[in-house]
Amino acid sequence: MNKNLDIVGIGNAIVDVLSQSEDSFLEQENLDKGAMILVDEEQAAELYAKMGPAIEVSGGSVANTIAALASLGSKTGFIGKIGSDQLGGVFQHDMQAMGVEFNTPALTDGPATAHCLVFITPDAQRTMCTFLGASNMIANADIDKELIKSAKILYLEGYLFDRQSAKKAFFTAAEIAKNTKTKVAISLSDSFCVERHREEFLELLENHIDILFANENEIKALFETDKLDDTIYNIKKICDIAVITKSAEGSIIVEPNKKYEIPAFPVKNIIDTTGAGDFYAAGFLHAYSKGHSLEICGKTASIIASEVITHMGARPQTDLAKLLADNLKI
Amino acid sequence: MNKNLDIVGIGNAIVDVLSQSEDSFLEQENLDKGAMILVDEEQAAELYAKMGPAIEVSGGSVANTIAALASLGSKTGFIGKIGSDQLGGVFQHDMQAMGVEFNTPALTDGPATAHCLVFITPDAQRTMCTFLGASNMIANADIDKELIKSAKILYLEGYLFDRQSAKKAFFTAAEIAKNTKTKVAISLSDSFCVERHREEFLELLENHIDILFANENEIKALFETDKLDDTIYNIKKICDIAVITKSAEGSIIVEPNKKYEIPAFPVKNIIDTTGAGDFYAAGFLHAYSKGHSLEICGKTASIIASEVITHMGARPQTDLAKLLADNLKI
Repeated sequence: MNKNLDIVGIGNAIVDVLSQSEDSFLEQENLDKGAMILVDEEQAAELYAKMGPAIEVSGGSVANTIAALASLGSKTGFIGKIGSDQLGGVFQHDMQAMGVEFNTPALTDGPATAHCLVFITPDAQRTMCTFLGASNMIANADIDKELIKSAKILYLEGYLFDRQSAKKAFFTAAEIAKNTKTKVAISLSDSFCVERHREEFLELLENHIDILFANENEIKALFETDKLDDTIYNIKKICDIAVITKSAEGSIIVEPNKKYEIPAFPVKNIIDTTGAGDFYAAGFLHAYSKGHSLEICGKTASIIASEVITHMGARPQTDLAKLLADNLKI
Repeated sequence: MNKNLDIVGIGNAIVDVLSQSEDSFLEQENLDKGAMILVDEEQAAELYAKMGPAIEVSGGSVANTIAALASLGSKTGFIGKIGSDQLGGVFQHDMQAMGVEFNTPALTDGPATAHCLVFITPDAQRTMCTFLGASNMIANADIDKELIKSAKILYLEGYLFDRQSAKKAFFTAAEIAKNTKTKVAISLSDSFCVERHREEFLELLENHIDILFANENEIKALFETDKLDDTIYNIKKICDIAVITKSAEGSIIVEPNKKYEIPAFPVKNIIDTTGAGDFYAAGFLHAYSKGHSLEICGKTASIIASEVITHMGARPQTDLAKLLADNLKI
């Protein structure tokens, strides 16, 4: 089968609104630090009015990964739903300007383009309040079969599980991938999202997923345990490859018969951790699609994740291909 | 007269769209490095389609100065025209979130909110293509007399000279200031803008301006000379205080009988020079409104200008009051 793309992603099409905030603001607004909270349009407007001056940068978890992959030189495509408004135009421009194939028709009548209010505390942690808007309206009709067929890997965003029609679109996409020898990867996205949809996540993982990305909290939520070793024992039975990220402590890559511990790549001045997991996945999938060993995949992932935390926003501000060439010695 | 505000600005209400670009792109598109070029909506859309991935940050020369003044702790107001759209909402939010009094009614029917495509080359220089849109529609009716009356200093943006009705609004505002003992400052904004409107700038300077901000190119364009000493000789006769900025070489403050040379404040890693002049003016006006000597005004200006060039975008990303307290020894 002719695979002219490396990775195609399906995810939320979001513009991030990033602002530096104090811890006291999170307390005042009852926001759990580090979490992603879904808000409606009215709540988003209320929070925005209280937010400090901000910058706008295209975001969305899988969209960030795809943008980073494009900067690495991978050939990529993206499926996600924007509204017919200025922020939708910004999101579309930023994907296409990276050379990403992105042609999902914009929603013509309905809610505005998704935006995510990101509160960055002095410890560089990010707390997110997302109005999903148009992004939530992705449906089966948006799943471009030809695009998925043409990719070596399909990469799915766990966050999309929050809406029934989007979840259906996911299973449709995974089915297409299975029939066209496209590997399927997923990011669990958020521990609360996992708790909301545990059974369906487990079903998808068992039947459709080749590569799982999760952080410690997410995989613990999936298996309802506090012990990381238990999650490793469980995940081996379900996925070919599972990658567990542990922030500054690096990551663990799990195969049925082997485990790799990958250290984090050192960074001097951490500004904003938004997108760290997304960039980790980008580095991993880039190396994986080129046929590298899992150890090299992990090392690449750590190097790429180190770039996004040195600046505000979750899109690359450096040439990632050059960053990798300068730092990865194979 | 009761002056409960320190500085009120009148300027363009613009959202900047910032992208890292190669020199070859400027050549390809025939863009003069360092210049500000006015484009219409169609040209802006064409250039945007060719631009790399971008970030959106509120901008506008005088608006940047006012935002920096607010971060310094000055009490500020702003008059400028946004459209009734998402980018207008972003601009308005960012001003109000800094504590700036900004209540100019948005244009309800007409062009979109102004945006400026900023191409940042590897030497940290910025080249700007501006679609003025709604910002251009500022008129006499928008000049809030009470706001101007309540300020110690009125600060005007030279760029606004590019439209007849805006120019009229300027003279109206300057007249109000004169009658209410509000000092008037102006930034010449751009050498090409000066060339387009030399006579009217000279008239405004002679009759209405107390403090002039200009860079070397702008003041040379004003007096049609290549010799900086000639411009100093000429400007003394027109303005009480003239400040000439010289990028990395610092600045010169000129009074009729005295001249101060102010060194630039050292910066390790210059990322994007967008807003350097705007922040210089903010530092100067902040100290000036507090009654400090011109030498302290200049030193404050240099410290504040050093912040904005260390990151992308022309709005503060640090607490400028703290930056000043840490670095200015009086």
